[in-house]
Amino acid sequence: MPEPKSRNISSVVHGVSRAERERWNGHRGGVLWFTGLPASGKSTLAALLEQRLHKERVSAYMLDGDNIRAGLSADLGFSPAERSENLRRVAEVAKLLVDAGFVCIAAFISPLSRDRDQARAINGADFHEIYIKASLAACEARDPKGLYRKARAGLLAEFSGVSAPYEPPPSPDLVVHTEQSDIDACVEQSLHHAVRRLARADT
Amino acid sequence: MPEPKSRNISSVVHGVSRAERERWNGHRGGVLWFTGLPASGKSTLAALLEQRLHKERVSAYMLDGDNIRAGLSADLGFSPAERSENLRRVAEVAKLLVDAGFVCIAAFISPLSRDRDQARAINGADFHEIYIKASLAACEARDPKGLYRKARAGLLAEFSGVSAPYEPPPSPDLVVHTEQSDIDACVEQSLHHAVRRLARADT
Repeated sequence: MPEPKSRNISSVVHGVSRAERERWNGHRGGVLWFTGLPASGKSTLAALLEQRLHKERVSAYMLDGDNIRAGLSADLGFSPAERSENLRRVAEVAKLLVDAGFVCIAAFISPLSRDRDQARAINGADFHEIYIKASLAACEARDPKGLYRKARAGLLAEFSGVSAPYEPPPSPDLVVHTEQSDIDACVEQSLHHAVRRLARADT
Repeated sequence: MPEPKSRNISSVVHGVSRAERERWNGHRGGVLWFTGLPASGKSTLAALLEQRLHKERVSAYMLDGDNIRAGLSADLGFSPAERSENLRRVAEVAKLLVDAGFVCIAAFISPLSRDRDQARAINGADFHEIYIKASLAACEARDPKGLYRKARAGLLAEFSGVSAPYEPPPSPDLVVHTEQSDIDACVEQSLHHAVRRLARADT
């Protein structure tokens, strides 16, 4: 991480502390970082988990390509350096959401260990790495957006799993097997992990 | 705003809609964008407003130099182009916070009309421009961080009001006169505006 270039950072206390927000919410904040191959089920699972957490009265917000690539990172492409910068920004936004009391579900391929490590460094103990695991063959068979087909045809450079590497996390906090389990079971497994790790703030 | 470079933005529906969050919170989300000279009182007022909104059970979160310049924008300096990019990122994060149901208080000098207009374009009708107004003489007399003194000594380039322009907003949604009113009155005035403009979601 670069050193801040700022000269004008004061020590004024934030209006409402994270601890106050967590007491108010009745749960801790944290980052559930979903990594996995394209079409492994990250965004679908994240959206369903967000719904389930909302029903459990847990403040949760999902970041994924849909709300990041069209806005905050609209200036970035898919080169390794640009992917790294995209994920750095996501990790920083996740940190702000956690400070605001939220459980942030970040669903990004995030194919390189070093970029996930950067996200962990930014978020410290609040960071939970969740590997959304399915074989390349299974993901390629799903291919809901036809992107694997395009990548195999040589039309997509930097496509993780085909024309760019995907490095599976060596020791994730949780592995969700979307190939072997049905989606409801995957949601419940993720929910169980989230609830266990982000237990009520006052306990 | 640049066109997104992404190819992989799907139309998957977000897990919990903004409308659902607003119904749950009992108020609408929005951006209260505080602009004003250095030492005009933006951050102090924003922090106190955040506290007051929290007491009123309004989900509010403040963005300012403290939590943005050391993280998301740690790679940026204070040239006009870098300030513009910093404020673009802030406006995009504010948009995410609004989507998450929050009132986002963004306290940044944001000296140029074009950068504030960019933030408004990103946030549309959710954007409320609030001018934190005090004379240059008053701000310079306060100078809590000794920055005006440094700027006058030629030690700070790009310091708004001294070595860089500050363009007052021609038609802000609200003007808060921090030079003439005491801080409590300014907080109440901001609160009144926020409550009036971000009325309950179900009304």
